[in-house]
Amino acid sequence: MIKITLPDGSIKEYPRGSSSLDIARSISEGLARKVLAAEVNGEIRDASRPIEKDSTLKLLTWEDAGGKSTFWHSTAHLMAEAVESLYPGVKFWVGPPLENGFYYDMDLGDRHISEEDLHSLEIKMNELARLAHNYIRKEMPKAEAIEYFTAKGDEYKLDLLQGLKDGEITFYTQGNFTDLCRGPHIPHTGLIKAIKLTNIAGAYWKGNEKNKMLTRLYGISFPAQKQLDEYLAMLEEAKKRDHRKLGKELGIFAFDDDIGPGLPLWLPNGTIIIEELEKLAKETEEKASYKRVVTPHIAKESLYLTSGHLPYYEDSMFPSMELEGVKYYLKAMNCPHHHKIFAAEPKSYKDLPLRLAEYGTCYRYEQSGELFGLMRVRCLHMNDAHIYCTKEQFYEEFRAVNEMYLKYFRIFGIDKYVMRFSVHDPSKLGQKYIDEPVLWKETEALVRDVLVKTNTPFVEVADEAAFYGPKIDVQIWSTIGREFTLATNQVDFVQGRRFKLEFTNKDNQPETPLIIHRAPLGTHERFIGFLLEHYAGKFPVWLAPKQVKVLPISDKFMEYAQTILGKLKNADIRAEVDDRSEKIGRKIRDTELAKVPYMLIIGEKEANENTLSVRRQGRGDAGSMNVDDFIASLKEEIKNRL
Amino acid sequence: MIKITLPDGSIKEYPRGSSSLDIARSISEGLARKVLAAEVNGEIRDASRPIEKDSTLKLLTWEDAGGKSTFWHSTAHLMAEAVESLYPGVKFWVGPPLENGFYYDMDLGDRHISEEDLHSLEIKMNELARLAHNYIRKEMPKAEAIEYFTAKGDEYKLDLLQGLKDGEITFYTQGNFTDLCRGPHIPHTGLIKAIKLTNIAGAYWKGNEKNKMLTRLYGISFPAQKQLDEYLAMLEEAKKRDHRKLGKELGIFAFDDDIGPGLPLWLPNGTIIIEELEKLAKETEEKASYKRVVTPHIAKESLYLTSGHLPYYEDSMFPSMELEGVKYYLKAMNCPHHHKIFAAEPKSYKDLPLRLAEYGTCYRYEQSGELFGLMRVRCLHMNDAHIYCTKEQFYEEFRAVNEMYLKYFRIFGIDKYVMRFSVHDPSKLGQKYIDEPVLWKETEALVRDVLVKTNTPFVEVADEAAFYGPKIDVQIWSTIGREFTLATNQVDFVQGRRFKLEFTNKDNQPETPLIIHRAPLGTHERFIGFLLEHYAGKFPVWLAPKQVKVLPISDKFMEYAQTILGKLKNADIRAEVDDRSEKIGRKIRDTELAKVPYMLIIGEKEANENTLSVRRQGRGDAGSMNVDDFIASLKEEIKNRL
Repeated sequence: MIKITLPDGSIKEYPRGSSSLDIARSISEGLARKVLAAEVNGEIRDASRPIEKDSTLKLLTWEDAGGKSTFWHSTAHLMAEAVESLYPGVKFWVGPPLENGFYYDMDLGDRHISEEDLHSLEIKMNELARLAHNYIRKEMPKAEAIEYFTAKGDEYKLDLLQGLKDGEITFYTQGNFTDLCRGPHIPHTGLIKAIKLTNIAGAYWKGNEKNKMLTRLYGISFPAQKQLDEYLAMLEEAKKRDHRKLGKELGIFAFDDDIGPGLPLWLPNGTIIIEELEKLAKETEEKASYKRVVTPHIAKESLYLTSGHLPYYEDSMFPSMELEGVKYYLKAMNCPHHHKIFAAEPKSYKDLPLRLAEYGTCYRYEQSGELFGLMRVRCLHMNDAHIYCTKEQFYEEFRAVNEMYLKYFRIFGIDKYVMRFSVHDPSKLGQKYIDEPVLWKETEALVRDVLVKTNTPFVEVADEAAFYGPKIDVQIWSTIGREFTLATNQVDFVQGRRFKLEFTNKDNQPETPLIIHRAPLGTHERFIGFLLEHYAGKFPVWLAPKQVKVLPISDKFMEYAQTILGKLKNADIRAEVDDRSEKIGRKIRDTELAKVPYMLIIGEKEANENTLSVRRQGRGDAGSMNVDDFIASLKEEIKNRL
Repeated sequence: MIKITLPDGSIKEYPRGSSSLDIARSISEGLARKVLAAEVNGEIRDASRPIEKDSTLKLLTWEDAGGKSTFWHSTAHLMAEAVESLYPGVKFWVGPPLENGFYYDMDLGDRHISEEDLHSLEIKMNELARLAHNYIRKEMPKAEAIEYFTAKGDEYKLDLLQGLKDGEITFYTQGNFTDLCRGPHIPHTGLIKAIKLTNIAGAYWKGNEKNKMLTRLYGISFPAQKQLDEYLAMLEEAKKRDHRKLGKELGIFAFDDDIGPGLPLWLPNGTIIIEELEKLAKETEEKASYKRVVTPHIAKESLYLTSGHLPYYEDSMFPSMELEGVKYYLKAMNCPHHHKIFAAEPKSYKDLPLRLAEYGTCYRYEQSGELFGLMRVRCLHMNDAHIYCTKEQFYEEFRAVNEMYLKYFRIFGIDKYVMRFSVHDPSKLGQKYIDEPVLWKETEALVRDVLVKTNTPFVEVADEAAFYGPKIDVQIWSTIGREFTLATNQVDFVQGRRFKLEFTNKDNQPETPLIIHRAPLGTHERFIGFLLEHYAGKFPVWLAPKQVKVLPISDKFMEYAQTILGKLKNADIRAEVDDRSEKIGRKIRDTELAKVPYMLIIGEKEANENTLSVRRQGRGDAGSMNVDDFIASLKEEIKNRL
């Protein structure tokens, strides 16, 4: 018998050689039907593979990243099987899973696959999937593997084999298709219920343009048709909500060739959103007793040598400027500057926790090819802060930071989020991780405790912490279900010491503070990009660049319209009058398109009765209202950020 | 007879060879007594020098920069006369006027002048001054001049003579002292009524450390003893108000070797001031219908080639960073970025005037040796905006900008200010100035008109405009009478065209806008440096980093103190409790030193009666008050920025 430790810590005994699937079945048949792969002692493997010794086991389903990627990689094999049956003699290169879906690169010889052919391929794949062939793993001596692909005349797999060691080579077979593959794979093709081939592209072999151009087929698949339908609807909706398209239409941001790629210019409407977000952050941080600071955007080389950004992070920094024989760098992070502010005046335990906040602008080098709208940029306005605290204060500080994240999620209607909690691997202390075994255990336990006690959804990921402490990556989903990585929240045992930061503790001894790095609203760039998609440009009224448009039915009512405008402005509401000589229908249509939340329509009746006819963007007529009542209710809506 | 044109445009006739002093006397004896020098056809000359042809004439008195510098240069000669009488055989190098005062470099041979000797020198100078010797100008052939100084054995003046052309050499003599000097000088020594020698320093001959070390004597002088007294009192006060000293004591800013010289870190207290200033600017600009934008701190070389900053301004910029074969520069000015925002979306006359505002951070290179606290820095947070308007809108826009300056002066209690209005020289159109004769005349007339109509004190300076248009430098004086150049306000005919900025005018034709550059609050760095001196660190309550300190008389009243603190914080007042176990006297003393505007003293009586004993920093007891009344009155004081 072998002992199997499950994620909840329980240990059960099973006959040696039981597979993960067997173990799943022993728990429930329903669970077993959902198992796609298994994490055995930290390694992702086929769920059907026997376990020979005492192990920790995590069963992976569609809900796990490892389950999903195995599913997609297996679908790539299924696609290869379908291609081979329709295009005999095709040769395959590699077919990895992607963040969403998979591809496979292939050499079709003189043949071509067109968009129209994709549908017949899908039909063939569905047909093969229904056969529910098992994915069968076979270890293969290198000589035999070479013999197999030599016989097949497959120079691509022979090339791959060159890089592999004897004893590490496996083949996978499902139905009539066999591939050189390290796996893992799902139990059988029958799990693949919905398939969409999404794209055909050319790709040079090994990415080298001197090599042959291969055909790359992209696809995605799901365990249920409903999921595919939702995914395709989401893509369709995402196109309409593309932040680059909306950003241009709504005058949010622009790029300019003379400024440079990845360096957005924030137009007046975008700047209003920036300022509202900063106002929210400042209010929230003020209440939480943060102190604001302002630091330069550059510093000497020596600062980044102390922090360790140079040379390790140099590739992601802008190149240096040399002044009077000294190298200066644009800051890629605010932390070293904040540490210097901590150090600028002597500190005692009474000054802690010290929370230094700054909407700091950082510059990072991303290759031109990787830049994408507001999502991948070179200039980042960051909702940054660093909390310097004692070990005793850590739990409470971390809890408060977590609460701040949750508060923001509520404000922005972000219903789906996950904290990806990366912890260290004790076997790598002193190498990958700073050698502080007790601190690691303590802080990780405290962080975990906060997440559990606050019911914050999180996944714990082994061996992915930062060098200097455990970290949390915050993943959020927009209304249409697209995933964004928003921000990180990190604990830091190292920088305090590197910068020789000290406070005098209660025993009058110098002590190094713990540091929490946090940026709940991430960067303006990425967050506003997210919000554009999330709201489809229809911002809630507190964020909307224009909040109210006054629409007089004709020029006769312009004077009353201007009076209304004056009142709105006095109440600090961002308002405008549509003073064009257009029909009211046209005015309404244009304002709807400009996504202004409120329209106030003014005609004979309204002017006589001192009222307004209120219309809500996208929701139509909202009835007649007294001017002061409207303003009061709008101010309430803005104040509460509804 | 010759025709003399006076500054008011009037033309009078005088006998050929009349001196400026003669002309002054013809106007009034009182005026003649105040004349120190004269500007004849744009050149500053001795007031006693005969005028031989039709000329424009401006009589220079102590109120004119040219009058002052002539006065101080003449005092340097007077000092040299006194030194020579007390230290025969001394040799002199150069003795120029300074921004405040003068110095003279001299070779005393083996002798030394100590601090104690300065007083006897002052006595000698006063004695010589009372003799009212005229400063007598004499043109001197080069050969004769060489002969004179060879006989005197003066290698320094012989060295100076080498660089001068025959026919351009003049000697000046007063009393027993004769010097090689191009002048000009004041009429006679009797005008120098008050003298203070301020410092002795060593100075290498020609600034080269391989040369002999000369003795440099510094001094300052005035036409009246009262002025000297005031100046010395001001210096004394300025020492106490030194912004570097106060900045450190009050936790406003700090420098750090690893960040770099000229790059201040703004500590939490300084950041509060920054944010209050930005709030004021944003409120004011919002009311004036400015639109805010945010732009990156860097741009490609091509942007600055278009703007003309490269290569003309390159020495004042940080060096470039090269990325993917393109040079990027830190911005030294925000204007090119704003122009790009203007250009990002098509504009019509309906969009004008467009006022784009940004607290933009610029980086400029100043040599290390020139950096000085917050006054000369490399990082500048600028209260910047650019107004794009039509010619018809220019007057009103300029008037509104001028009004904004005046509004700010009132808020900060700046009673003394002058707009230095620099205009073009029509003879240099097409060379020093863009060739737009009509635009120059029109806009200069409009600017002058605004200044006159609003009773704004200004001086008009010929031939000092920018290449691209007339400009105004704003000079302000702190409470203790020290002068600061705050900001500039410029009209720009050029950049619009260089950037091909266009709007569609009413005739549906493309037209280039006029641009006004303005920054009424200058940079945070210089303005906060000014305010530290101006207020001696005792900021008005709206600007004060800490507004209220609650001082419980003993720990017994801590709970009530905390209740008060809660109420203050709820009212958004920056407050703290002094929770140390110190005597109340000590608490008050420390809070006075920390320059917190309000102290609330809490004891038995206050706790029982739910009142406060209020104390105003620097003004003592302000009586007992009900808590809510105090908060209401303080909020009013803050809101009105009193």
